[in-house]
Amino acid sequence: MRKIDELKTIVNEISDINKAAAVLGWDQETYMPKGGIADRANQMATLSKISHEKFTSEKVGELINESKDELKEEDKNSNDAKLIKVLNRDYQKSVKVPVRLVQEMSKASSVGQQAWSEARTKSDFSVFEPHLKKIVDLRREYAQIFAPYDHIYDSLLDDFEPGLKTADVKDIFDKLRPKQVELIKKISEKEEIDNSFLFNRFDEQKQLDFGVNVITKFGYDWDRGRQDKSAHPFTTNFGIDDVRITTRLESGYLPAGMFGSMHEAGHAMYEQGVSKELARTPLGCGASLAIHESQSRMWENLVGRSLPFWEHFYPELQKVFEEQLGKVKLDDFYRGINKVKPSLIRVEADEATYNMHIMLRLELEIGLMEGSIDIKELPQIWNSRMKEYLGVIPKSDAEGVLQDIHWSMGAIGYFSTYALGNLVSAQLWECINRDISNLNDQIKSGEFSELLGWLRCNVHQHGAKFEPQELVEKITGSKITPEPYMKYLNEKYSRIYDL
Amino acid sequence: MRKIDELKTIVNEISDINKAAAVLGWDQETYMPKGGIADRANQMATLSKISHEKFTSEKVGELINESKDELKEEDKNSNDAKLIKVLNRDYQKSVKVPVRLVQEMSKASSVGQQAWSEARTKSDFSVFEPHLKKIVDLRREYAQIFAPYDHIYDSLLDDFEPGLKTADVKDIFDKLRPKQVELIKKISEKEEIDNSFLFNRFDEQKQLDFGVNVITKFGYDWDRGRQDKSAHPFTTNFGIDDVRITTRLESGYLPAGMFGSMHEAGHAMYEQGVSKELARTPLGCGASLAIHESQSRMWENLVGRSLPFWEHFYPELQKVFEEQLGKVKLDDFYRGINKVKPSLIRVEADEATYNMHIMLRLELEIGLMEGSIDIKELPQIWNSRMKEYLGVIPKSDAEGVLQDIHWSMGAIGYFSTYALGNLVSAQLWECINRDISNLNDQIKSGEFSELLGWLRCNVHQHGAKFEPQELVEKITGSKITPEPYMKYLNEKYSRIYDL
Repeated sequence: MRKIDELKTIVNEISDINKAAAVLGWDQETYMPKGGIADRANQMATLSKISHEKFTSEKVGELINESKDELKEEDKNSNDAKLIKVLNRDYQKSVKVPVRLVQEMSKASSVGQQAWSEARTKSDFSVFEPHLKKIVDLRREYAQIFAPYDHIYDSLLDDFEPGLKTADVKDIFDKLRPKQVELIKKISEKEEIDNSFLFNRFDEQKQLDFGVNVITKFGYDWDRGRQDKSAHPFTTNFGIDDVRITTRLESGYLPAGMFGSMHEAGHAMYEQGVSKELARTPLGCGASLAIHESQSRMWENLVGRSLPFWEHFYPELQKVFEEQLGKVKLDDFYRGINKVKPSLIRVEADEATYNMHIMLRLELEIGLMEGSIDIKELPQIWNSRMKEYLGVIPKSDAEGVLQDIHWSMGAIGYFSTYALGNLVSAQLWECINRDISNLNDQIKSGEFSELLGWLRCNVHQHGAKFEPQELVEKITGSKITPEPYMKYLNEKYSRIYDL
Repeated sequence: MRKIDELKTIVNEISDINKAAAVLGWDQETYMPKGGIADRANQMATLSKISHEKFTSEKVGELINESKDELKEEDKNSNDAKLIKVLNRDYQKSVKVPVRLVQEMSKASSVGQQAWSEARTKSDFSVFEPHLKKIVDLRREYAQIFAPYDHIYDSLLDDFEPGLKTADVKDIFDKLRPKQVELIKKISEKEEIDNSFLFNRFDEQKQLDFGVNVITKFGYDWDRGRQDKSAHPFTTNFGIDDVRITTRLESGYLPAGMFGSMHEAGHAMYEQGVSKELARTPLGCGASLAIHESQSRMWENLVGRSLPFWEHFYPELQKVFEEQLGKVKLDDFYRGINKVKPSLIRVEADEATYNMHIMLRLELEIGLMEGSIDIKELPQIWNSRMKEYLGVIPKSDAEGVLQDIHWSMGAIGYFSTYALGNLVSAQLWECINRDISNLNDQIKSGEFSELLGWLRCNVHQHGAKFEPQELVEKITGSKITPEPYMKYLNEKYSRIYDL
């Protein structure tokens, strides 16, 4: 038996265990009765322990090295070679982290989430502060394990965006920020768009049916997936042939569920499109969070919030919600769903302001990791930056520094992937429009198969074989860059706001 | 650390893995898209392999012995002592079975189920015959591992009913058979009951709602369970606080879904009632299949098909199905749902004939294991026994020897537990009626809490601490015996058929 096959046998089993844990996680968010929580926590902990033990065993380390030696020169670009590379990277990271730290982190995150939840309810940062301090300390300790590095934050970023450096992201955001600020300023001088018709009563079942219809046309494969309801929408996969999404509908606000479904379908179609040769390995998923987000944001925004899209779907939507939208013209609807207004909450932000929320968070995270920001002062710094970037000031911690769950989970290093995903979506979009000259006409006819085919071929099938920058460069000819996204935003909003 | 605690740590993890597998199984039968099947099979196989490896490790064997030595005289009846006993029993059995045989059995069962399904569709036993031969050979090989025994069938029976012997079951059935035959004969001389009103159109959502209402009143705890739809109804648990049931509704036949829900709720309330001290161990479940079936059949038949029950619920049911049942009198309805008619299919059999189907299967299984029955002749033997016992002859293999999935799964030794469950339900019922003198009045008022409380206290809380015969004797003062069940049947049908 070749060493790589021996290694794959173990890797496949680890994948099975992780997928089993994903099923348990999905059930917990969708159907589990409340009584199930204590046992479920035990089951998840046991599966995660077994998976970790199996992966960090000496045997796996040996097999990785032996598989590397076994590789022939002509195989250096094979799937096996890519797999060995990724396994080696993950293995080297995993074995360096002491079990004690993993456990402390897990506990701090569990306690931290509870404290965050309480703090947010009370809108009182001081309830969360000592827990955040603990979490930041542990993340610093974790990051320092991987010294030497150019920047301490690199270690965290690398967990979400393999190979990406803090300096790269800073550089990208430094170029992006002034242009985005300028656009927001120009728009703010224009008359506010009326989108009051989006706030009304919208029957949830009808919303659901409309969303299903849209993502079916996108190409989401229902034989290899399904959609359920959950408190927070997410995508999860139990294998390339079972990639599920969830949705959350708001009866009083139409865009939430509608664009949420398109967003999750974007994630899910990515995972459904990964080559089956990569199944049951760490390559059988998206390349990184940013690349994942490029897919979800593309379907949600570049497709779903475009005029051609609604030229096709608006008459249908009007028929479904005759009473609410029957008299609203297409152009007013299109302007309404694209209204720009600086606001306090990231997840409710429009395309023009969204990245500003991310840049603020990145700066704070870097400051926390460098130790240059005192945690006590975080609410105050948050509020002053919000004023500076978006011209709005939170009235409370709940709508300010406490709005996101991420830090309480220990997920520091995560946020920038949202903005990077936006940038990548526009970079890809330029290439797609070069390759598919009549894309807009296709969208206008409710035709998405050529678009999906392009993504399948250029992005999806590769799974996690390439690092994000490598993949973006391979497809677009350049690494992640803000220009296409700003060009897209400027063109779009110039028309909408007559800039 | 005490050895028993060390042992429990491993046992708890094994339990977590098995429960995780149960979640995957539940999802497979309820919500999994069809694309998920291949990956799911891998995930299930991996979890089952890890669970088996963990349990059969030398370490577990040593810890069992060391824990036994550690037990003090005064602890001989403690939960720990019971746990060690059960673990030792299961361990000794597990380590004796060669991995090769486990794998061959698993493969034969997987291939066998496909062949059975095809054979049943074609109604052609010869398609299934070579596979059944293989399965029987493997089960014989398995059984022989546990020699010496009184009877080769003992080894199989013991997997489902720990401690029970073939001779015991034969003895019970020998006493039961003539009485049951006599009852059926008497009834067959009476005029056939008209139950045509049960075959009509019954809205599925209304059926579902009515069933939910009934089992809620029974005491099924929805905070610790839920009900979904599946092709074959079942109960599964992911811990004492998450015990789920499924149901299958037939829009054209009311009893199927209605009594199905009561049946599964009976199973589920058993598992919900197990003492939490036994959680995450092999004691944290029902004592055996027969004891389990005693609970499901009690709620389905002794409660759900009784007159007092319908005195309470029939007006409600009539309101729900006004058009179909508005003019059907309570007594006619009661007689209709209790109509006795010898028929070909076990799962559709009434209370008076059901056990005959089981006895036939037990005799054939024993013959197959003894080698006294030639597999080729099975359809013919089946048909002639059906004629002898029930006076009906299958027109095809599909409605004869091919009707049940059990043998194709390798589950030989399982069937008798259904009949034993019926007998135990009546034995318990006698005790309950002694302890709760106005039980019928309570049922008539839709009051079940005292009944459930009795079952919780006398049966449920003990989980699998006692072997089935031990438990029945502890509660009723005698081992499993057919008299109470025959008394129950005779009294019930004497009234219904005026015997």
